[in-house]
Amino acid sequence: MSKFSVRAFGVSIDGYGAGPKQSLENPLGVGGLGLHDWLFSTRTMQQIFGKEGGTTGIDEDFAARSFENVGAWIMGRNMFGPLRGPWPDESWKGWWGNDPPFHTPVFVLTHHARAPISMAGGTTFHFVTEGIQSAAERAREVANGKDVRIGGGPATLQQFLRAGLVDELHLAISPILLGAGEPLFANIDMLKLGYQCVEHVPSPKATHVIIRKQK
Amino acid sequence: MSKFSVRAFGVSIDGYGAGPKQSLENPLGVGGLGLHDWLFSTRTMQQIFGKEGGTTGIDEDFAARSFENVGAWIMGRNMFGPLRGPWPDESWKGWWGNDPPFHTPVFVLTHHARAPISMAGGTTFHFVTEGIQSAAERAREVANGKDVRIGGGPATLQQFLRAGLVDELHLAISPILLGAGEPLFANIDMLKLGYQCVEHVPSPKATHVIIRKQK
Repeated sequence: MSKFSVRAFGVSIDGYGAGPKQSLENPLGVGGLGLHDWLFSTRTMQQIFGKEGGTTGIDEDFAARSFENVGAWIMGRNMFGPLRGPWPDESWKGWWGNDPPFHTPVFVLTHHARAPISMAGGTTFHFVTEGIQSAAERAREVANGKDVRIGGGPATLQQFLRAGLVDELHLAISPILLGAGEPLFANIDMLKLGYQCVEHVPSPKATHVIIRKQK
Repeated sequence: MSKFSVRAFGVSIDGYGAGPKQSLENPLGVGGLGLHDWLFSTRTMQQIFGKEGGTTGIDEDFAARSFENVGAWIMGRNMFGPLRGPWPDESWKGWWGNDPPFHTPVFVLTHHARAPISMAGGTTFHFVTEGIQSAAERAREVANGKDVRIGGGPATLQQFLRAGLVDELHLAISPILLGAGEPLFANIDMLKLGYQCVEHVPSPKATHVIIRKQK
């Protein structure tokens, strides 16, 4: 059966899952790229960037695992792009170029309907205006027994956590301060929602924690 | 010259520096003891508890350093005890027995005046009703060139951070969720206040980070 999982989600020491003032120049908000320093340097990500080399070890293991057995993605509008409000036209197709690194159906939560976009490499962006339950059902169906990976931003993740729809989270706590931005756990009682930290693997660049919903 | 430093300050994955509902039974709030799991098991702390043994290595090094070169302490009322409001009598003398592990003057912030208490081992509790600047001046004076260590709770620490009075923080991020309690960095912009994470040392039980105010 499909698990719903959050993977390779960066968080700062001061608790932000993205920096402030997201824009075309700062997809993860000001300073937010620092959350992914551990990730971008791995062999898995370097391959995605079309490059040789990259780190091996703990960070690489988590990076590689983050892409395994994923049958569908769900993400918020802000992970898909910096635009807000109605789509001005059909030109924005995500940050990731013609061949995005998902290779599955991706359900993008939005208040503004838009036709699906088929990209190279098997990624199709579907735009869901009926909310997270609808996105969860559609993703589960197409995942066909594989896992559904929940992306960001933090506001989207919080919606899924509050609805009890996340089975497992892999967070990477990066040794940086962001000062401002999108807090991951503000006003959300993870214990009351049934979550426990079950694994803790530090690497030189991040502290990896696995948080699992207790049955 | 005296540095003002925070040391061995535990914080949960979800950002709490203490659990909810502090009481006589739960000095650090419900679940809060888990923040100090790395610390209490060290040789330094086992010695303070009058026991043999204890861990050595990264956690022990940080535990030992946390007591070095301290000339005075400042703490909030909630770190001193679970009582709120006016002191009912003189009987409460802290959580730490007759010989508290401070061995210096300790300035306790409170709205309710009380005579100083001299304890065994060189600890004297002074009760400061004039606010953090007054406590800082008095602590700096008696520290006589040694460092002033700022304790909790998180509300006290936030006051000192906002006033620009903290030179350095050593936090230990513990791999636990608290779900609720006293958030450490809520509504405080550490970058704007001039802080940067300058060191990151993971151990199997915690991730130690050093945050320093940039001059």
